[in-house]
Amino acid sequence: LVSVLSSGIIVYRLPWTWKCSKFLIKLIHAGLNTIAMIFAIVALVAVFDYHNAMNIPNMYSLHSWIGLAAVIFYSLQVFLGFAIFLLPFAPVTVRAAFRPIHIYSGLTIFATVIATSLMGITQKLIFSLKNPAYSASPAEATFVNCLGVLLLTFGILILWMVSKPQWKRPPEVNAKVLQPFGATPEGRKGESTLTDGSNGVKSDLKVNSEAARKQNLKLDEAGQRSTM
Amino acid sequence: LVSVLSSGIIVYRLPWTWKCSKFLIKLIHAGLNTIAMIFAIVALVAVFDYHNAMNIPNMYSLHSWIGLAAVIFYSLQVFLGFAIFLLPFAPVTVRAAFRPIHIYSGLTIFATVIATSLMGITQKLIFSLKNPAYSASPAEATFVNCLGVLLLTFGILILWMVSKPQWKRPPEVNAKVLQPFGATPEGRKGESTLTDGSNGVKSDLKVNSEAARKQNLKLDEAGQRSTM
Repeated sequence: LVSVLSSGIIVYRLPWTWKCSKFLIKLIHAGLNTIAMIFAIVALVAVFDYHNAMNIPNMYSLHSWIGLAAVIFYSLQVFLGFAIFLLPFAPVTVRAAFRPIHIYSGLTIFATVIATSLMGITQKLIFSLKNPAYSASPAEATFVNCLGVLLLTFGILILWMVSKPQWKRPPEVNAKVLQPFGATPEGRKGESTLTDGSNGVKSDLKVNSEAARKQNLKLDEAGQRSTM
Repeated sequence: LVSVLSSGIIVYRLPWTWKCSKFLIKLIHAGLNTIAMIFAIVALVAVFDYHNAMNIPNMYSLHSWIGLAAVIFYSLQVFLGFAIFLLPFAPVTVRAAFRPIHIYSGLTIFATVIATSLMGITQKLIFSLKNPAYSASPAEATFVNCLGVLLLTFGILILWMVSKPQWKRPPEVNAKVLQPFGATPEGRKGESTLTDGSNGVKSDLKVNSEAARKQNLKLDEAGQRSTM
């Protein structure tokens, strides 16, 4: 779940996707997040079934409260994102207004899911390890603690990747600049030199994305960055 | 601890502090974080003392691992911040390079501290509530769960405040624009109208900070924003 969720988050940060149309990447972003949402709901149903089968009460722990809230907000996020950014009905002003909220909610839900997992790991270790107990630090406790630390580190790295302004996808303006590659004579020439001298193409791409990044910042400044 | 930590974080976001010199606000930021660091270390010592007195093993839980790591990284953050941003030795290039790392680490440590608290609350509730147990949802469990939800909400709000670009402190350029207030004839005029017509002064301030914000964005773009 967390891996699908994070690939849904960072799909815009992969430079090789900057050549693809923004609509395709949005479809992938929406698709990955929909898959993660289905996983989360299936997992919730499994937890309730397990609790009922084992006669364990439901929804008593802080882990369950925050976890359920996270899944509800996540589903809301997916549905609103679909309705506003993927369907063609919302005007640009609505998209622009909703964009920072969508981004911040997404990152917040991601961080909350990590915190919920860490709480869940803590609970599970206390309840499952009885002889020897969690406090006696058996190998299993140390191993699962390491998994928890890795999960946290992974979350921190994903949020770091997202926060780097240099790794932001250049806006649609750039796609238009890049499209002629492979279609114009220069583009074909670039393609033919891919095997013997691809540096030229790479530096061209770099210059273009550099220009797009500047354009990007200027548009951001004016609050007019495309959200189409 | 969390409240001192968060006031340390948001001290730059209070518009009424934008009139103060950046050095003063940096001193307050450093001071609040130093107090929070001392609280954290005292709390750690208290935990070890309590564990030793009660014959509870130390450092076996995921909560303790992540919590200790957070305190170590936090102390490192305070010392490096002090050495680089407060002492006058580091050149501007070092400050500019270290700035995004300092900001991201600070926010990450803050979020990690919240996650650690939530894990600690979960642990404490499981260990302390025995008759009735945590799973029987006694009033204390519900109350402490609510505190946990409030803590998470508080953390999310603080990070939201920090992430809003409009709430960023304008750079030092602005301080120079503002300093003449109260020193030039216009400034005195402004002061004298504070009682009967402070709107003029306010709108002047607004215009100035608006200009500074634009300047701010431009400097950010060039990666040359003052870190002095």
